Amino acid sequence: MSTTEYQVAINRSRIEKRITELGQIGRIGDTGVCRLALSQEYRQGVELVKAWMEEAGMVSRIDHFGNVIGRLEGKNPHAPILMMGSHIDSQPYGGRFDGVVGVLGAIEAVQTMKENGIVPEVPIEVAAFCDEEGCRFNNGFFGSRGILGRLEPGELDRTDKNGITRRQALIEFGGDPAKFAESEYAAENIGAYLELHIEQGPVLESLDRPVGIVTGIAGLLWLTVEMTGTAGHAGSVPMPLRKDALVGAAKVIAALNDIVKPSPDSKAVGTVGNIQVFPDSRNIIPEKVKFTIDLRDIDQGKRDENEKRLREKIEAIAQEHGLTYSITEDNNSEPRYCAEWIKSIINEEGERMGLDCPELMSGPAHDALIMSYVTDYAMIFVRCKEGISHNPKEFSSIEDISLGTELLYRTAVRIATEAFTKRGDLR
Amino acid sequence: MSTTEYQVAINRSRIEKRITELGQIGRIGDTGVCRLALSQEYRQGVELVKAWMEEAGMVSRIDHFGNVIGRLEGKNPHAPILMMGSHIDSQPYGGRFDGVVGVLGAIEAVQTMKENGIVPEVPIEVAAFCDEEGCRFNNGFFGSRGILGRLEPGELDRTDKNGITRRQALIEFGGDPAKFAESEYAAENIGAYLELHIEQGPVLESLDRPVGIVTGIAGLLWLTVEMTGTAGHAGSVPMPLRKDALVGAAKVIAALNDIVKPSPDSKAVGTVGNIQVFPDSRNIIPEKVKFTIDLRDIDQGKRDENEKRLREKIEAIAQEHGLTYSITEDNNSEPRYCAEWIKSIINEEGERMGLDCPELMSGPAHDALIMSYVTDYAMIFVRCKEGISHNPKEFSSIEDISLGTELLYRTAVRIATEAFTKRGDLR
Repeated sequence: MSTTEYQVAINRSRIEKRITELGQIGRIGDTGVCRLALSQEYRQGVELVKAWMEEAGMVSRIDHFGNVIGRLEGKNPHAPILMMGSHIDSQPYGGRFDGVVGVLGAIEAVQTMKENGIVPEVPIEVAAFCDEEGCRFNNGFFGSRGILGRLEPGELDRTDKNGITRRQALIEFGGDPAKFAESEYAAENIGAYLELHIEQGPVLESLDRPVGIVTGIAGLLWLTVEMTGTAGHAGSVPMPLRKDALVGAAKVIAALNDIVKPSPDSKAVGTVGNIQVFPDSRNIIPEKVKFTIDLRDIDQGKRDENEKRLREKIEAIAQEHGLTYSITEDNNSEPRYCAEWIKSIINEEGERMGLDCPELMSGPAHDALIMSYVTDYAMIFVRCKEGISHNPKEFSSIEDISLGTELLYRTAVRIATEAFTKRGDLR
Repeated sequence: MSTTEYQVAINRSRIEKRITELGQIGRIGDTGVCRLALSQEYRQGVELVKAWMEEAGMVSRIDHFGNVIGRLEGKNPHAPILMMGSHIDSQPYGGRFDGVVGVLGAIEAVQTMKENGIVPEVPIEVAAFCDEEGCRFNNGFFGSRGILGRLEPGELDRTDKNGITRRQALIEFGGDPAKFAESEYAAENIGAYLELHIEQGPVLESLDRPVGIVTGIAGLLWLTVEMTGTAGHAGSVPMPLRKDALVGAAKVIAALNDIVKPSPDSKAVGTVGNIQVFPDSRNIIPEKVKFTIDLRDIDQGKRDENEKRLREKIEAIAQEHGLTYSITEDNNSEPRYCAEWIKSIINEEGERMGLDCPELMSGPAHDALIMSYVTDYAMIFVRCKEGISHNPKEFSSIEDISLGTELLYRTAVRIATEAFTKRGDLR
């Protein structure tokens, strides 16, 4: 279908205007945004979002984790809520859409309900979670982990580049770590979680579809590999006497690509994004190379198999080149699947809109990943240009955003009016 | 032979004492040296070397390029001279032997002649050339290029890390760029050049030999390769849609190793010492990778063939991964062979000393490379521990240095007494 055929119930120009307005706060160049968590720009953004929540008919509050949360009361105010959300903090050199579309889409969905006189059976809450990105204190999903009591020891003592701790930043923002408990949720009080987000990948564009349904968030494995050989002058050490750590690392990088690639229907992805060479001089044979590995799959078994093959390959390459090595595991999360019952609703509503929504995996994690540990969840993806994200060039058209927001709205109405009085009623 | 059997004519304890004393100037830790060209430490070193030249019976002077040069008069003062030399400037984190052994070895050779009443037919000059290393102004062999009128335009305007130009540094040192011509040599006035140097590689150690005869200085090709693909989130771009610049670069690095390695008697070496990834984030697919290539061979034809194969491989890999690329040539020098007639003398004298001196290529360049364009030259290498150089761990034993110095002395006596009244007489 053409994206212009379907007449959306949501207010397209309103959400477009809000995206543009929020994009002015922390703006870089024409289209970029720098709105780091708990910064002054972040505070400004939170105030604006809070005002829009009120305008949408919600009661809003800023909690002690730096989240801003709006609530639309339901007929049964004690029922587990339907929560929708995302984030408005950005990468240091980010775009206008990442997170923002989910927050403003959810506000738009609620405002449209309100305007259409739809009163939900259960309360609906919209959250803009603080510090999803994690780039300031090198640890993300702070707000969503916070409300679920999932912060880690010492987390408030983490510092940013200027030596400011998260505790200081949070207090300056207006949060009070002593009162965290007041802002926490009991798991049983959250009935379902919905998140609209730009895809941050090229799949929908390659399929020529505006909106997709997420099957789940891939399980992620982060490794750091360090290979060590022997330095020497590039001109004076004959090849047979060398133990070149970069040659070893290069072979591992090429091998990872081969391991992950072969099966065409595989969802596995593997990436080396970061590499450091020591001493990093053009005429010295590299002694030490440290590089990261990012391995994801929606299928845990396949990911484990790929990891095993990679580790065997590293061992073989190290042997061949006389290198020693270490492998550190920095992160290891299992795949988290979206709830079938919510996916069914999204799919039905998508069909009613005349959309043909493909299913796709989310490689990146989202606040939804955190929520998945306490409630059923689903995600709707909006096509984004060339898959570019975390960059000022990030772009989704207002047509696609409108369709995604409409689908979020229709799904939320179905969940909140067909109602669950306790979690899982609709499954 | 054991290195203790042969009784050297040179004064082993004197050269040992001088190496230790010079090593105190700019000393780092127990064994390191930082004596950057034209620095205060360099000036101190030059004064000390100048005094030792005088002590050895030479007339010495500091020229306008920052070189210190001593002269022992010959029976025929107008004959082309025998020049010996090396350098005493160091890397910022260097060792005590690189360059120093050649300068102090040459002084020791002259002093031993003098003490033994040997009067050379032709004048002998010993040079400690200024700024061989090139690390301060990122351009080396300044002193040797200077005396031969081979400086490049704009060279005096190069700045160091503190913004000081070479001109300023040279003037502060006492040189006068307006008087460069006074310090230059006509090519026909230099009859031959000899340089003693630590190997800076592991070949002699692997052969268990204290001293080697250099066949020539390898031709060097420096390339910078930049490969460009498309950035994207490491989790959200399926493998078939990727254009990962680091995967491409890794395959090139592995390919270079394969291209250079195969033939066991090949002297070719190829190294990637420096690599930069953009944006260099663990969860972003690399968009741009820039890396250096250092390719050397004593055989120009073979090096050209290797370069051709490498370029073909880069093209094929770029095609396969949808990458664009550029290759910049940063440096390209031809191999420079040592003079057969001098090598024969060195070999004969080595045999008389009971040494079995293997021939080996010099991968690194030396002041000798510059001199090779105006005169016949030869080099003697001294074994160094584990091939380590440009590092405080650099080490050559006084036994090996003595043998190298003795061989230099004997070779210099042969050349300067059997005499050439014009260049090439002994060929």
